[in-house]
Amino acid sequence: MTSATSLPSVIAVDVGGTKIEAAVVTAGGAVLAETRIRVTTGAAAAASAEAFADALLTTVRKVREHPLAAGISSIGIGAAGPVNLPEGTISPINLPAVRDFEIVRRVQQATGLDDVRLRLDGTCIALAEFWLGAAAGVQNAIAFVVSTGIGGGIVADGRVIAGASGNAGHLGQLVVDTPVNGDVFGATAEGQASGKYTVEWARAHGWSGTSGEELSAAVRAGDALALEAVARSASALGRGLASVANLLNTELAVMGGGFSYVTDDYPSQVERIAREHSVNAYGRELRVVRAGLGKDAPLVGAAAQVLRADLLSL
Amino acid sequence: MTSATSLPSVIAVDVGGTKIEAAVVTAGGAVLAETRIRVTTGAAAAASAEAFADALLTTVRKVREHPLAAGISSIGIGAAGPVNLPEGTISPINLPAVRDFEIVRRVQQATGLDDVRLRLDGTCIALAEFWLGAAAGVQNAIAFVVSTGIGGGIVADGRVIAGASGNAGHLGQLVVDTPVNGDVFGATAEGQASGKYTVEWARAHGWSGTSGEELSAAVRAGDALALEAVARSASALGRGLASVANLLNTELAVMGGGFSYVTDDYPSQVERIAREHSVNAYGRELRVVRAGLGKDAPLVGAAAQVLRADLLSL
Repeated sequence: MTSATSLPSVIAVDVGGTKIEAAVVTAGGAVLAETRIRVTTGAAAAASAEAFADALLTTVRKVREHPLAAGISSIGIGAAGPVNLPEGTISPINLPAVRDFEIVRRVQQATGLDDVRLRLDGTCIALAEFWLGAAAGVQNAIAFVVSTGIGGGIVADGRVIAGASGNAGHLGQLVVDTPVNGDVFGATAEGQASGKYTVEWARAHGWSGTSGEELSAAVRAGDALALEAVARSASALGRGLASVANLLNTELAVMGGGFSYVTDDYPSQVERIAREHSVNAYGRELRVVRAGLGKDAPLVGAAAQVLRADLLSL
Repeated sequence: MTSATSLPSVIAVDVGGTKIEAAVVTAGGAVLAETRIRVTTGAAAAASAEAFADALLTTVRKVREHPLAAGISSIGIGAAGPVNLPEGTISPINLPAVRDFEIVRRVQQATGLDDVRLRLDGTCIALAEFWLGAAAGVQNAIAFVVSTGIGGGIVADGRVIAGASGNAGHLGQLVVDTPVNGDVFGATAEGQASGKYTVEWARAHGWSGTSGEELSAAVRAGDALALEAVARSASALGRGLASVANLLNTELAVMGGGFSYVTDDYPSQVERIAREHSVNAYGRELRVVRAGLGKDAPLVGAAAQVLRADLLSL
């Protein structure tokens, strides 16, 4: 056995809207569980960029102190967006005080390491699924999560793309409908299909539950309104994926995130809708499958920025 | 002056639904007008793959016979889709008898040249605009035409992408609405925004004209229904571009095609709608501008497959 520290492992960091997670990831893409640190950022980090910085840099420091992190000289960060890759900054929607935060420079300064890389969290998920997950070997794919929001990343012609400032992959912001009364968000895939907004829609139509888990239970119990709510979600997401498949000639959609498990057949519902809404035959070849890596994907992808930079378009 | 034949010029071929065009294009991207051949394919080619092949190969042969084509050993073809690049075949929607037509092999056999390349016409337009047109230097862009249909190509992270079978860029097939009575096409950007369907919509609502040119004249005369028809077109196209900008973090949309001239302010109408339908700030930075190369773009881009292969993602 080779010791983990003799391999070019990477410290991976996943910055979400409510938590920061970090761990050592080996050259083969294994997240070393014993090195994993998870910090709930909470209200303080949302209200203060310096509180956020403290939480971030403490998390990174703790992972670096682990013996398995000895000698590691590269850090890969995946972050909730929007990001600005040319600037090395992040402005996560759910952390209102964290705006144009120079995450790359701050981590470089705190660690003394030059090799600190940044991508959108959705980019990291796509990179992980393309490297080691359900999209392995598929040259044109989208990988995304359906939870509170809907975000992901895109593989085009065998490379994960970034876009102008690094925010490519935001499936949830596709416009799938004509806005009613100027409600633009309500016409997006996220506004009609995410867990949060599907529950809101069901409640507005008389359902009494409060969570995706309860909605899932109601579907299993045969509740007609719950079934309708899930079908509406699948319809909006399927129309969004039809647009992706037609615009990018995408072969595969890889779906993760808590709400994607609302019913066993949710991916196949979405696939059917996507195909029905494709005028061209090539769009009707889109397959929708469940993710291969689950909750490890953000960290694996963050590390893959370093370990598999050849899979990135730039 | 260097003679044109001493440069590595290319024979460019543009296969449309109703015509085939070919010309010598210089290494600098100039279409040599004196070499240009245009053949209307018409009903015979639509009804018979061999009639189509005759028209195609005759067009290529005539260009090759021109003195300025002497010594040229590369042919770049742009074709109406769908295409299948791995197979080297085309199945243009408007040529029902031309299905899985082995255009690369047929042109190779007829000319004895090995270097025959194929891309979707929309890819060629994007490649041309990225090389020498309105998208020059812009690393994330979409270029498209609004005429009978709406098709184009995509620049992502500085490369023009192809997609699984080569059909990426089909902006017209984005789903921008909930279909009414199962009319999927009517819910697409093309079904609501193209010249043909905008005229149809206006006629269904009582307008008596029959063409985009008449619609344009009616707008200039202040006809309320004509104005509404154009606004509806801009709305659907703008929603489609909002989806593109959010999905791909696209900076620039380059618009050509006859119907894009229906009003002077059509691009700015579309830009305003696209920005209004973007939830994220980065999407609201999309600029919509007119094409730089006009009717030469398909031939310039067909040749650019050879001349600027470095601008293609694969």
